[in-house]
Amino acid sequence: MVELVDITDPDDPRLADYRDLRDVQLRQTLEAEHGLFLAEGEKVVRRAVEAGFSARSFLMAPRWLDGLADVLDRSDAPCFVLAESLAEQVTGFHVHRGALASLHRPPPLPVESVLAGARTVLVLEDLVDHTNVGAVFRSGAALGVDAVLLAPRCADPLYRRSIKVGMGAVFTLPWTRVADWADALPALSRAGYTTVALTLADDAVPLEDAVAGLDKVALVLGSEGHGLSPRWEQSADRRAVIPMRDGIDSLNVAAASAVACYITARR
Amino acid sequence: MVELVDITDPDDPRLADYRDLRDVQLRQTLEAEHGLFLAEGEKVVRRAVEAGFSARSFLMAPRWLDGLADVLDRSDAPCFVLAESLAEQVTGFHVHRGALASLHRPPPLPVESVLAGARTVLVLEDLVDHTNVGAVFRSGAALGVDAVLLAPRCADPLYRRSIKVGMGAVFTLPWTRVADWADALPALSRAGYTTVALTLADDAVPLEDAVAGLDKVALVLGSEGHGLSPRWEQSADRRAVIPMRDGIDSLNVAAASAVACYITARR
Repeated sequence: MVELVDITDPDDPRLADYRDLRDVQLRQTLEAEHGLFLAEGEKVVRRAVEAGFSARSFLMAPRWLDGLADVLDRSDAPCFVLAESLAEQVTGFHVHRGALASLHRPPPLPVESVLAGARTVLVLEDLVDHTNVGAVFRSGAALGVDAVLLAPRCADPLYRRSIKVGMGAVFTLPWTRVADWADALPALSRAGYTTVALTLADDAVPLEDAVAGLDKVALVLGSEGHGLSPRWEQSADRRAVIPMRDGIDSLNVAAASAVACYITARR
Repeated sequence: MVELVDITDPDDPRLADYRDLRDVQLRQTLEAEHGLFLAEGEKVVRRAVEAGFSARSFLMAPRWLDGLADVLDRSDAPCFVLAESLAEQVTGFHVHRGALASLHRPPPLPVESVLAGARTVLVLEDLVDHTNVGAVFRSGAALGVDAVLLAPRCADPLYRRSIKVGMGAVFTLPWTRVADWADALPALSRAGYTTVALTLADDAVPLEDAVAGLDKVALVLGSEGHGLSPRWEQSADRRAVIPMRDGIDSLNVAAASAVACYITARR
């Protein structure tokens, strides 16, 4: 049973998890150090708890208590209750969707357990934009991806913005980071996956042809600006492209990922 | 030949077109009243001018002058040159990509001229997010769409953010707004298009089946929150869905649009 804690002082030290949510740099440090992540909005908070993540605390204005009553009832973390204007002072922005939760960041899963039973895997190299990471997870979950692997420097799927854009898909789609960037794709090949890099390289073939008839596939996507590193591009088993209209050779990584997942799901 | 105008006062009235670029509300009013739109970033400014849009003026820090010299040379609009710190005071944000241009907003095209020769058309109802509008244009241009029609209330494709996210696709893909919301889809049917609404309605069939063998197709997408209005959903010739994994029934509108364009291009 949740403990409701009325808050009247925005500087209350118990609210430390919720400070300055718009400061990406600060938040990344704070969340890593304290082993937490933030979920925002009634739907996403609910999904996090239902997916088994353990709450450190909740924070919301009184009017959100009813809608989340069942979620709160099952938790023994405190729920800080405060006026919306105070919440805004703490977080640094207007919390449109009302509820926030601070949750324990789980230890990273081993790659083998993420891949267990996975037939279609997405591999993301160095995406920098949390919005794109969230969008890729959401489309992947909807379009048949079973697991996601991230390069060491890829943006954090448990960052608040990633979770929100991904509608909580990061809670249900198994994912982890690979430890060894250089060997990431060869290791997947040894595990039985055909690694297919999305690229505009000269030897890229249409993706539909690249995945035709394959069993286990790992689709490999690079960063927003420069795409894949040469190392990853060259160490993939196949290089493939989404056919585009003459004279146009780029899709946003989130759009490319959605189309690629659709194509791959129908192989 | 462009006239270079050194600016030292951020309140200089000649900079009126560039004020407070982060204030969406103010900008919408100002741009409509003055018949202008803004392009941001060297690449997008270049594309706007190369696509034939006429500049009212340019604004940039000295270091961007060389890269855009050929574009400026072909224009007789003034180019306001000022320090980056001053530019930030005028616009309200740090102009990462350096150059801005204010361009004359062209009169709306007639629907018939936008549709002339178009085999695949996207029709957007009430998208509210400029990022999504830009993303839809970009994917559409890459994946075979020939023209875009917008409902009267759809967010503006010539808003700075739409243009930027769309990488200037709005300059090359013919588009306009329909005047009569209620008759929009029946009018397309009379013009020989099969209108296919993307929806989760009970009678929706897989999109691949819905477009198979069709000649002229109009793909119809609704708003981010609630999808299509019942009127549009019901007045479309066909209702279709992108097949998704069990238990998941939603894609972001930009992702859905990319996948839908890909499928439709291969009909």
